[in-house]
Amino acid sequence: MSSTAGQVIRCKAAVAWEAGKPLVMEEVEVAPPQAMEVRVKILFTALCHTDVYFWEAKGQTPLFPRIFGHEAGGIVESVGTGVTDLKPGDHVLPVFTGECKECRHCKSEESNMCDLLRINTDRGVMLNDGKSRFTIKGQPIYHFVGTSTFSEYTVVHVGCLAKINPAAPLDKVCILSCGISTGLGATLNVAKPKKGSTVAIFGLGAVGLAAAEGARLSGASRIIGVDLNSNKFNEAKKFGVTEFVNPKDHKKPVQEVIAEMTNGGVDRSVECTGSINAMISAFECVHDGWGVAVLVGVPNKDDSFKTHPVNFLNERTLKGTFFGNYKPRSDIPAVVEKYMNKELELEKFITHEVPFSEINKAFDYMLNGESLRCIIRMGA
Amino acid sequence: MSSTAGQVIRCKAAVAWEAGKPLVMEEVEVAPPQAMEVRVKILFTALCHTDVYFWEAKGQTPLFPRIFGHEAGGIVESVGTGVTDLKPGDHVLPVFTGECKECRHCKSEESNMCDLLRINTDRGVMLNDGKSRFTIKGQPIYHFVGTSTFSEYTVVHVGCLAKINPAAPLDKVCILSCGISTGLGATLNVAKPKKGSTVAIFGLGAVGLAAAEGARLSGASRIIGVDLNSNKFNEAKKFGVTEFVNPKDHKKPVQEVIAEMTNGGVDRSVECTGSINAMISAFECVHDGWGVAVLVGVPNKDDSFKTHPVNFLNERTLKGTFFGNYKPRSDIPAVVEKYMNKELELEKFITHEVPFSEINKAFDYMLNGESLRCIIRMGA
Repeated sequence: MSSTAGQVIRCKAAVAWEAGKPLVMEEVEVAPPQAMEVRVKILFTALCHTDVYFWEAKGQTPLFPRIFGHEAGGIVESVGTGVTDLKPGDHVLPVFTGECKECRHCKSEESNMCDLLRINTDRGVMLNDGKSRFTIKGQPIYHFVGTSTFSEYTVVHVGCLAKINPAAPLDKVCILSCGISTGLGATLNVAKPKKGSTVAIFGLGAVGLAAAEGARLSGASRIIGVDLNSNKFNEAKKFGVTEFVNPKDHKKPVQEVIAEMTNGGVDRSVECTGSINAMISAFECVHDGWGVAVLVGVPNKDDSFKTHPVNFLNERTLKGTFFGNYKPRSDIPAVVEKYMNKELELEKFITHEVPFSEINKAFDYMLNGESLRCIIRMGA
Repeated sequence: MSSTAGQVIRCKAAVAWEAGKPLVMEEVEVAPPQAMEVRVKILFTALCHTDVYFWEAKGQTPLFPRIFGHEAGGIVESVGTGVTDLKPGDHVLPVFTGECKECRHCKSEESNMCDLLRINTDRGVMLNDGKSRFTIKGQPIYHFVGTSTFSEYTVVHVGCLAKINPAAPLDKVCILSCGISTGLGATLNVAKPKKGSTVAIFGLGAVGLAAAEGARLSGASRIIGVDLNSNKFNEAKKFGVTEFVNPKDHKKPVQEVIAEMTNGGVDRSVECTGSINAMISAFECVHDGWGVAVLVGVPNKDDSFKTHPVNFLNERTLKGTFFGNYKPRSDIPAVVEKYMNKELELEKFITHEVPFSEINKAFDYMLNGESLRCIIRMGA
């Protein structure tokens, strides 16, 4: 037992007081974990688009003050009652969606959409008592997707923590908490391209490049990157992308351009932008008879996916995925092992690193489109 | 070699001279098979909706005079040059779509949409020379989908003939040429329900009932039939359908009715009507996390499939199928064996039987919605 177990911990956290305003470094009180909860010392966190999206609060009910952050790596400080899978000192990755191991989804081989712990972006409190574990001089500060990793200590439901190899460097594998696993799993677990196949990736941000990395690991012979920004092609080559298409360079729909390049269509496509037009193109660019398109990017509320049903009847498949179909506790430890075995490369995703005190720089890098992933070093 | 090999055969055929007019029994000349062709003596044929659809010629360019018919069983009379897989006396089922065994589709494990012999409803001639093998006093009579089984003898490309167990009764297994295999394969090969799962079948015609039969064979615990005609439920029970929903009986969309009946949605659904609204319902009624919907029914030209993309992102899958994903030559013989092993029941699909001379009665039974399958006995 650590000496802090059962005590309130005072530590630094980057608090978002208002939508779109720079985070403010504050001293927060972090309450001890309750039943089925775990208090984690965060060592490294990274910034993901989803943090920025909810921090901007343009499309949803704003919930402030709040501690954002959901890609991270840390060490268990103490555990609440009922927690048997984790003990102080264990290395963990917090994940924004959980795995209770009891519900129909967790018991299904096919789903990772846990009934109890599925991502909930509106909830800012813990499940156990409907309250926050963070306060500043008694004022509650809301949680974000059950992780709130922009704090030196955080409290997380045990079902949202993947226990990983303690030898894994947390400043690298922390990015497996969200975006990189999402893209990688979309290809490896859902699109499942065979060796030698052709794969189109729509959107060459971190998630799309992780999907490309998955295609590279699968032995795809051609990986066609599609993006509205041609500057991304050079970087994308590191992730196995062999050809590049910018829809702006063509008069005809990009699905037709790709069909011409590939004698009728690609074997697999993975959509990582969330644009409805890209989703339709990603579906319509796969080959009849065997093509599979996978949707990853999150659409707008009012979008409608439209296509002629004959595109399905000609034996095409359209699937969606969430967190790359990985079950956080059961599957993420093995993804970490893929990195440890040097099968999966993570360094190339990490373009920036800042100390915790300069966390707002990470927001700037992302908003300017400069970074893939910026690692934020805690305790610095 | 039969004594007729190499000779023109004169025999009876039911000729459609005009759209929607009763077929006329004529004496036709059937030319010998050319390279890669086979002349088949048809013993039994059945009537399928697709024959009626093209006979009515309401939605497509009319092609007359024509010999319809594509569900049948027969015996090889003679073979053209280059045919090595079949010899006179072999029992065969002609199939409206073929398998050349050479193209990318035939070489893919996933596709049955042969580049060379894929269904072509507009072509009324043989591939080899662009001509018909049927004439009446020298006037060419068009073929239909390469089979034209409403004739005592027909000429078929070798790639469109499944060689089957000679012990199989052709008056039963002839219905495996099209509709029954289409529905059965949609469930067994594409939806693949697990034992104990829930399956919704949209449309309780012969194809939908064959899809239900597939769900029954797979050990589904609940098979929910959906049809606008409540009278179909009683018959459907024989095919394993356990519950019935008529969308007309409900104010809310049928996908919501089914979700309520099944705690969130069925595990699998199979759409066998071709109605675009049924397609959307069939997709939206599957459970998130693992649900798979399969489209079988052929839509109208101008239909548009529309849904909110989040329905995909919540880990639902939508697939289309063609001829139940069976490769005609490679896979249909094994479907015949399923009948021979008494695993698959075919008798319950056969509601009527007429002699060839009364073939127009089969059209009446289908148009009146009285029949599932009507067997037409040749040579009678």
